[in-house]
Amino acid sequence: MITVLRIGHRISRDKRITTHVALVARAFGADSILIDTKDIKIEDTINSICTRFGGLFKIKSGVDIKRILREWNGTVVHLTMYGEKLSKSIKKIDKDKDLLIIVGAEKVRPMFYERADFNISIGNQPHSEVSALSIFLDRYTDGLWQKKRFNGKIEILPTDKGKRVISKESKV
Amino acid sequence: MITVLRIGHRISRDKRITTHVALVARAFGADSILIDTKDIKIEDTINSICTRFGGLFKIKSGVDIKRILREWNGTVVHLTMYGEKLSKSIKKIDKDKDLLIIVGAEKVRPMFYERADFNISIGNQPHSEVSALSIFLDRYTDGLWQKKRFNGKIEILPTDKGKRVISKESKV
Repeated sequence: MITVLRIGHRISRDKRITTHVALVARAFGADSILIDTKDIKIEDTINSICTRFGGLFKIKSGVDIKRILREWNGTVVHLTMYGEKLSKSIKKIDKDKDLLIIVGAEKVRPMFYERADFNISIGNQPHSEVSALSIFLDRYTDGLWQKKRFNGKIEILPTDKGKRVISKESKV
Repeated sequence: MITVLRIGHRISRDKRITTHVALVARAFGADSILIDTKDIKIEDTINSICTRFGGLFKIKSGVDIKRILREWNGTVVHLTMYGEKLSKSIKKIDKDKDLLIIVGAEKVRPMFYERADFNISIGNQPHSEVSALSIFLDRYTDGLWQKKRFNGKIEILPTDKGKRVISKESKV
């Protein structure tokens, strides 16, 4: 089981970035996302995507972070530009254990660096928690996300021009 | 030369996502980003990052898209969830030619699908232009972005706990 824990979410400032983090979590093979701040709108947006595009992805906001970190039975990874190199760290992660991936907005408090079993950087240049999560999950799943089937009401078929969409909804 | 062309940028709605797109472009090996809508704030933000963290990355907003597409001498890739599979398309791209990567916000007009030599999907599930660009550049550069040196005033050294930062600035 792969769970993403989004911390430092501010409803007005981060709504789109956190939405993208959640969509990346779903598309790249995580099972769920937990968000510290309660945000019904993001829950609705992601649940609507799941209803239409399929899969068993779960979202929950307004969670008790300290309790989650205290009770987590598995590995904790924290993605940060200050962390150890991805290529070096990823080999050390035991894939038989449940994985919690902490994804911060802006400043992250020292307690998260301390609690993490692995602080991992996706390069040491500033970029984005969205790209960091996608590259991490790509490596962690050995690219298996590309083969994942979601069996949604809407399915998009790859094509070199235009759009090919299969819809099993009565009304689109 | 790799250039990212960000289209459909709306200043208030997209400022953070477009900033992340630009930072990903820089960190993952592109040489520049062009943005359709004039947005001085994003230019300032990215130029400030370049000054501190190094590299030769360029940003320009308020560009004439139609002219760029008409005059582009090289390959045009359009990243879209409707496109052909990444693994299939990427082999066909001639890496000796200059590359323009179109990254859209929400709805993208048919002319871009038509103009692109390759419409490429990073999976056919909804996620993010930020993650799509990072995965595309990762594959296109064969992961070479991880070895790129930026020689900035600020350099972050990988570490497993805490932060290790080298600063060559007189004041940080």
